[in-house]
Amino acid sequence: MTDTVTGLELRSTISSDAKLTLSLEPVTLSPPGPDELIVRVEAAPINPSDLFLLLGPADLSTLQAGGTAERPTLTADVPQGRLAGLKTRLDQSMAVGNEGAGTVVAAGENVAELLGKRVGMIGGAMFTQYRKIAARDCIPLPDGASAADGASMFVNPLTALAFVETLKIEGHKALVHTAAASNLGQMLNRICIADGIPLVNIVRSEAQAAILREIGAKYIVDSTAEDFREKLTDAIAETGATLAFDAIGGGKLANTILHAMEAAANRTATEYSRYGSSTFKQVYIYGALDLGPTELDRGYGFAWGVSGFLLTPFLIKLGMEGNLRLRARVAAELTTTFASNYTATISLADVLKPDVVAAYAKKATGEKYLIDPAR
Amino acid sequence: MTDTVTGLELRSTISSDAKLTLSLEPVTLSPPGPDELIVRVEAAPINPSDLFLLLGPADLSTLQAGGTAERPTLTADVPQGRLAGLKTRLDQSMAVGNEGAGTVVAAGENVAELLGKRVGMIGGAMFTQYRKIAARDCIPLPDGASAADGASMFVNPLTALAFVETLKIEGHKALVHTAAASNLGQMLNRICIADGIPLVNIVRSEAQAAILREIGAKYIVDSTAEDFREKLTDAIAETGATLAFDAIGGGKLANTILHAMEAAANRTATEYSRYGSSTFKQVYIYGALDLGPTELDRGYGFAWGVSGFLLTPFLIKLGMEGNLRLRARVAAELTTTFASNYTATISLADVLKPDVVAAYAKKATGEKYLIDPAR
Repeated sequence: MTDTVTGLELRSTISSDAKLTLSLEPVTLSPPGPDELIVRVEAAPINPSDLFLLLGPADLSTLQAGGTAERPTLTADVPQGRLAGLKTRLDQSMAVGNEGAGTVVAAGENVAELLGKRVGMIGGAMFTQYRKIAARDCIPLPDGASAADGASMFVNPLTALAFVETLKIEGHKALVHTAAASNLGQMLNRICIADGIPLVNIVRSEAQAAILREIGAKYIVDSTAEDFREKLTDAIAETGATLAFDAIGGGKLANTILHAMEAAANRTATEYSRYGSSTFKQVYIYGALDLGPTELDRGYGFAWGVSGFLLTPFLIKLGMEGNLRLRARVAAELTTTFASNYTATISLADVLKPDVVAAYAKKATGEKYLIDPAR
Repeated sequence: MTDTVTGLELRSTISSDAKLTLSLEPVTLSPPGPDELIVRVEAAPINPSDLFLLLGPADLSTLQAGGTAERPTLTADVPQGRLAGLKTRLDQSMAVGNEGAGTVVAAGENVAELLGKRVGMIGGAMFTQYRKIAARDCIPLPDGASAADGASMFVNPLTALAFVETLKIEGHKALVHTAAASNLGQMLNRICIADGIPLVNIVRSEAQAAILREIGAKYIVDSTAEDFREKLTDAIAETGATLAFDAIGGGKLANTILHAMEAAANRTATEYSRYGSSTFKQVYIYGALDLGPTELDRGYGFAWGVSGFLLTPFLIKLGMEGNLRLRARVAAELTTTFASNYTATISLADVLKPDVVAAYAKKATGEKYLIDPAR
C-alpha cells in the first residue's frame, strides 16, 4: 500500500499573546513504515490527563466559537500570569489525545497481519481521524470488542494496576483511593476484589457511594459526612492501609488521610513516641481535581511521604516484563474488570463547542466523554 | 563492683489535667550487668530533637519556677487542644536527653576494659548524673578528647552523614540544606567539602552566611534577600541539586526549593511536557523550626516527593555495616569535621529556670546549650 490518507486532526495552540485556539486541521499521512500502522480512529476518550494539553490554563469563561461548520475553531483568553511554565509550547500547534482505538487501514510489511484488525493505541495525538503509529504501541482487541471497548485500555487500566503494583513493591497491605467512584476507581475496586486487596474508597456523595456498593466495594467513606474522619480511621484501622492514591491534590484531604493512618497506627500503640508512630504512611498525588495548594500540618510524626505519581515513569521503572504482564491482563479482562462507561459520544467538532467544553472540563466523577472522529 | 550509685535525673511529666512539670529526681542505679556500664555524665547537649519530649506542647508564657534550690521544679500549662497525640505519655515521668558523654565509673565483666575511660553515649535519659547503659551504645573517645567534645557525637554527626548517604543511595549528585548555619549544617559543609559533594546552603541572615563562608562553603543563599528565588535557582542549576533536607518544615520553603529545582531542570528543556520536567525532586523534612503547615502548590509537575526524615529508622535500614562505618568516621574526625560549638554550659538545675528555658527553647541557629550534670 503506497497511498497517502488525509483526515482532520484536533490541534491546540497557545500563542505568546496569551490566546488559546482549538482547530481541526487537515493532515496527510504518508504510507506506514515497515513496523507501523495507519489506524482509522473510531473512539478516543477525553481523560482528565488530556485536559491540560487541550485547554491549557485558559479562562473558560472567555470561550468563543468561530470558523465554519466543517472547520470550526474555538478561542479563549489565557490569563497572562498563567503563561509561566508554558514557554516550550507557545505558538506551537499541539496534537492532543492520549489513547484511542480504531481499525487498521494500512500496515507495514513486518506487521501486515494486523491489517483490518481493531486495535487499542497509546501515544498521543489520538483526537484525529487517522493516526500513524508504531505497532508496538497498539494492542489488538479481542474478537467482538468494539472500538469503544478498547478506547480506554491504557491510561485508566494501567494506572489502576500501577497502584496495586506499587502496593506490592513498597510492601503495603491495603490502600486508600480518593475520587473513588471514577471509572478508574471502579476498575481499581474490581482489581482489588479479584486480588484480595482491601481498598478504602473515599467518595464525595451518597450517589457515588451507591455506584461503588453496586460493584461490591466493602469500605466506602463519604468525605462530606460529619463523621468522615472517624469512619476513615475505622476503615484504615480495619484494613491496615498505609498507602493512598489521591486524585484531588489540593486542600487538606491528603493531610486528613495521613492523620487517619497515624491515628489507626496509634490505636495499638502502648509506648509514647515523640516522633509519631513508626508506621510509614505514603500518599501519592496523581491528579489535580483541586488545583489549590496541598496543606500538610505534619501532625503525624516523621514517618510519612507525599509524592507526585505519574504513570509513564512508573511503567519505565517497572520494566518490559512487568509492562507485558499488565497489558496482557488488560486485554484479557477488557470488557469485565476494565470496562469503561461513557456519558456521551461526541464528534471532533463537538470538542470545540463551548457548551460541550463546559461539560467535559467539569471532570465530574463518573462522567466521561468519548470522541468518535468518524462522526 | 557491687555498689549502687545515686544521682539526680531530670524528669518531664505532662498530667492528664494538662500541666507540664519538670523536676530533678534522685535515682539509684543497681550495679551494671555483664555488658553494661555506669557512666558519670559530664556533658549532654540540648538538641532541638530533645525539646519536644522535655517541654511538650506547653505554653512557655506560663512557666513557673517552684521547689527548693537543690530540688527545683518548673511547671507550665499545656493548652487542652494540644493533648491529642500525647495520651501514651500522660502522667508518666519521662527521662530526657538523647546523647551525652562522661566517664565510666563501673563496668560489667565483659566490658571491664572500659572502666575509667571517657565515652560518648546515645540512648535517651542523658540529662542525669549517672547513666546505666549497654556498652554497645557507647563509643570510647580518642585520647585527650573532653566530655564536651564527645557529647554530640551521635545525633548531629550521624544525621549529617545520613544526608550524604541518602544522596548516594537515591542517586542525587548535590544537595540543598536549610537552616544551614546550624551546628549540623556546619558539619554537613565540612563533610561535603571533604567528599566533593556540592551543597547549597540556605540561611536566613548575613551573619549566618558569614559563618558558612568562614568554613569554606561555596553556595550560600539568603532566604531574606530579595533575589532569593533567582539565586537559589542559579545555585541549583549550577550544582544539579535534586535533593533537599529541610529543618524548617512549615511554610513555603520546601515549595520554593521544589520550584527552584524545577526551574533549573527546565532551563535546559527543549520540549514541552505538560506534566512538568521528568527530573525527580525530593525534599526531606527533618525538623520543625516552623510548626505551621507545609504548603505545596505542586507547580512543579508530578516528579517530586516531600517526606519526613528521622535518623533512627534510616540507621536501621542502613544496616550494621553502614552504621559501623559512619561511627568510625565520627570517632576519627571528632574534633575536626564533627566539632560542636556551645553557647553556654549549664547545670541540670539551670534547665528548669524560666529565663534559661526561654533561651534554649528559641532554637536560634548556631546557638546550642550543653548540660554538665556535675555542676
